[in-house]
Amino acid sequence: MDTPTPHLYESLATRLSEAIHAGTLRAGDRLPSVRRLSTQHRVSIATAVQAYRHLENQRLIEARPKSGYFVLGRTNPLAEPAASRPPAAPRFVGVTQLVMEVLESSRDANAIPLGAACPAVELFPNDKLLRLANSEGRRHPELLGAYAMSPGHPRLRSMIARRSVEFGCKLSPDEIIVTNGCIEALNLALRAVARPGDTIALESPTYFTLLQIIESLGMKALEIPTHPRDGISLEAIDLATQKRGAVKAVMVIPNFSNPLGALMPDENKARLVTLLEARGIPLIEDDIYGEIHFGASRPPVTKAWDRDGNVLLCSSFTKTLAPGLRVGWIAPGRYYKQVEMLKFINSVATPELPQAAIAEFISNGGYDHHLRKLRAAFARQVQQTTEVIANHFPAGTKVTRPTGGFVLWLELPNKIDALELFHRARAEGISVAPGPMFTTTRRFQNCVRIGCGNTWSPRIERGLIRLGQLAATMIA
Amino acid sequence: MDTPTPHLYESLATRLSEAIHAGTLRAGDRLPSVRRLSTQHRVSIATAVQAYRHLENQRLIEARPKSGYFVLGRTNPLAEPAASRPPAAPRFVGVTQLVMEVLESSRDANAIPLGAACPAVELFPNDKLLRLANSEGRRHPELLGAYAMSPGHPRLRSMIARRSVEFGCKLSPDEIIVTNGCIEALNLALRAVARPGDTIALESPTYFTLLQIIESLGMKALEIPTHPRDGISLEAIDLATQKRGAVKAVMVIPNFSNPLGALMPDENKARLVTLLEARGIPLIEDDIYGEIHFGASRPPVTKAWDRDGNVLLCSSFTKTLAPGLRVGWIAPGRYYKQVEMLKFINSVATPELPQAAIAEFISNGGYDHHLRKLRAAFARQVQQTTEVIANHFPAGTKVTRPTGGFVLWLELPNKIDALELFHRARAEGISVAPGPMFTTTRRFQNCVRIGCGNTWSPRIERGLIRLGQLAATMIA
Repeated sequence: MDTPTPHLYESLATRLSEAIHAGTLRAGDRLPSVRRLSTQHRVSIATAVQAYRHLENQRLIEARPKSGYFVLGRTNPLAEPAASRPPAAPRFVGVTQLVMEVLESSRDANAIPLGAACPAVELFPNDKLLRLANSEGRRHPELLGAYAMSPGHPRLRSMIARRSVEFGCKLSPDEIIVTNGCIEALNLALRAVARPGDTIALESPTYFTLLQIIESLGMKALEIPTHPRDGISLEAIDLATQKRGAVKAVMVIPNFSNPLGALMPDENKARLVTLLEARGIPLIEDDIYGEIHFGASRPPVTKAWDRDGNVLLCSSFTKTLAPGLRVGWIAPGRYYKQVEMLKFINSVATPELPQAAIAEFISNGGYDHHLRKLRAAFARQVQQTTEVIANHFPAGTKVTRPTGGFVLWLELPNKIDALELFHRARAEGISVAPGPMFTTTRRFQNCVRIGCGNTWSPRIERGLIRLGQLAATMIA
Repeated sequence: MDTPTPHLYESLATRLSEAIHAGTLRAGDRLPSVRRLSTQHRVSIATAVQAYRHLENQRLIEARPKSGYFVLGRTNPLAEPAASRPPAAPRFVGVTQLVMEVLESSRDANAIPLGAACPAVELFPNDKLLRLANSEGRRHPELLGAYAMSPGHPRLRSMIARRSVEFGCKLSPDEIIVTNGCIEALNLALRAVARPGDTIALESPTYFTLLQIIESLGMKALEIPTHPRDGISLEAIDLATQKRGAVKAVMVIPNFSNPLGALMPDENKARLVTLLEARGIPLIEDDIYGEIHFGASRPPVTKAWDRDGNVLLCSSFTKTLAPGLRVGWIAPGRYYKQVEMLKFINSVATPELPQAAIAEFISNGGYDHHLRKLRAAFARQVQQTTEVIANHFPAGTKVTRPTGGFVLWLELPNKIDALELFHRARAEGISVAPGPMFTTTRRFQNCVRIGCGNTWSPRIERGLIRLGQLAATMIA
């Protein structure tokens, strides 16, 4: 048998997986035979086999003995939640008390972690990074012994700039400032463009720490209707920003948002950028999940359509490479000088030794290799979690169908109070994130976010099943 | 010859150095013979010899052939600057533009660095720390692969708590939150106790980044008269805080302040704490230089007198161990909950791998050993710098006499404009910090700060001499 060509089998597999995700191929569909596939796509038999194996690993297809390959697809009979309908007035936030309580529960090492968006330790190349850090530190003692200076390690900024071509912009290393994780980047972005009392528009539901940052800076949050598949509503943004000064900045997670997992279509991204540029409203983009796409291609960032530097793009290596190192970055467009200054004032600079190690890992190809495995793992874990939910949660439960990231958003039957479920689950050693954390209002009271970052295990499965049972008892 | 006892010779040397610093022993004084010293202090001959050698290394005494040991003392014929007299009204800050310009000049790797308070790379145990980080990372992959969680690595917090006995408080590990350097700690402290528009009282001149933090948070700075030896004026603080609400918080660097190098006497510390506690005004203490004492004993922090949790103590390992790692901490007293929350919102947590390495370095005794060498190096460098200034700067130059830290504050003859000197020096590849950086007002126009963190070298000496010449031409 000939040797499969790596790039060929991958692009073939991703073409097929896109067809599955788009619904062109549906659960139960029989796939072409290996020989047929190889003829159709003009690839070798080995490449065709390898492509099917790859999809099997992702649990998108299965081989049935003597019958061929079949689409497993999304064995998910559950409906998706509808678009959100937040109230139209901006609010001071006030979620912090609840968030701190939930975080405390998720810190409990004995609890089954179904709430946090934290991947398992073993999914990351910790040893390799450590070895790289060690060798960089030996060669460059100044990485420990000299003051790190903004804007960050030059080599890491170069590597990010190089990768930026893949997500649709051509950043220059001089446009990038390295930060203590994406969260510092978002803090700096907000402080650069808005003042206490200003209103920030964002998705609803949204990542609770965005709400906390807005709260801590004395700003107001305006929640915008958001669809679990397409993301933030362009019509609602248009409406909310018509009155000059009503919204000072817009903050979105366009790629695999947290908690909905929504992916904004490219045309929505383009329209959003154009609209906000025309109205002089800066767009803060959080792309922390952008690299974790289950489909073939890396979705572009909204900054890809940015011509005037109006988009402040924030991201990090926290979800994709090293949660413990807290290396993030921002490309703040025309707000570069303000962000640079605020970074210095907020924490002087980001430590450079981990940056040097990450730069080397990207440069030697390790990062791309790791990302391919990580995406497959998350796709599998999201699929497995969805299956258990479909089988063990009360009838009427709705769940999102994310095509990237590693969180699911569940809408439980109306009667179920998510806070009560959180408390009952906590009492049984299960940690979960209740819906009201993700809004400034008293909505999403029957919703929970489930994190699928952990390697599948009987313990995780048991926790999920038990959570479904607990929910069921609450409507009995 | 018998072996000298390490603790004995050190305590003897520090007793003598205190006498020199206090002026009891003066430049030119002959010291007792080795035999005499050994009898007087009931130590072995070897211990007495070792004590004198230690003082020679610190350039506090010299051995003259066939005559014995003599106090070199402080061969500094220059006067000290007087106490500052800032205006009595609080101000919005506005130093950032100048600070960014000066910082940019200090980033120039080719410039002779006389301005920055950055120690030389080779003064730090970079290799040792790297080895410790590597072995901690191998044993605990979660230090890279898991989310760091506030409040910081438990072992480092224990070690800080253990050391806190030496500086006069008995902190519990649970009172400490690890931060991205002292600067993040100070940001969090200010945000925990004050709001935009509030007035913060602080030393004058003071560390420019404190002014920048206040500015970036929309607060006002009230500069308080400060003496270069004793620090902030208690009388002025008393006066400024009499009217309820006029001052929301006080922020001081009681031990070897930056830029004056002042050391607040213990009784002033006690009075300050009592006064502010009685008036319900929180005290933010920056103790980043506290470990760098030239005299025998580690000066206590003001928090040593804190009974009600009114003092927020901030410090870091940046000046003493690893500028590149940016590991700082805060013991926020009764503001613990607020600071913990703000830390999470500002940057989630501080990376734990460097914390684990530092904890191990403290625990195995490496840190104390390193500190002894570092203090001697800084004492020597401050002394050498002072000598060059005395010999090469224009008549009438005044200079501080710090007993710790590694910066000097120079008051040049009135005619000399420090900003002009900064520009002229910069044009010749010399970086220096002009006085107006350290105030919100247009004062200190004839002052400069000189950093003595660099290992003495002909290049440093040449830069200093040239700076003196440039200053001289400005009054010619």
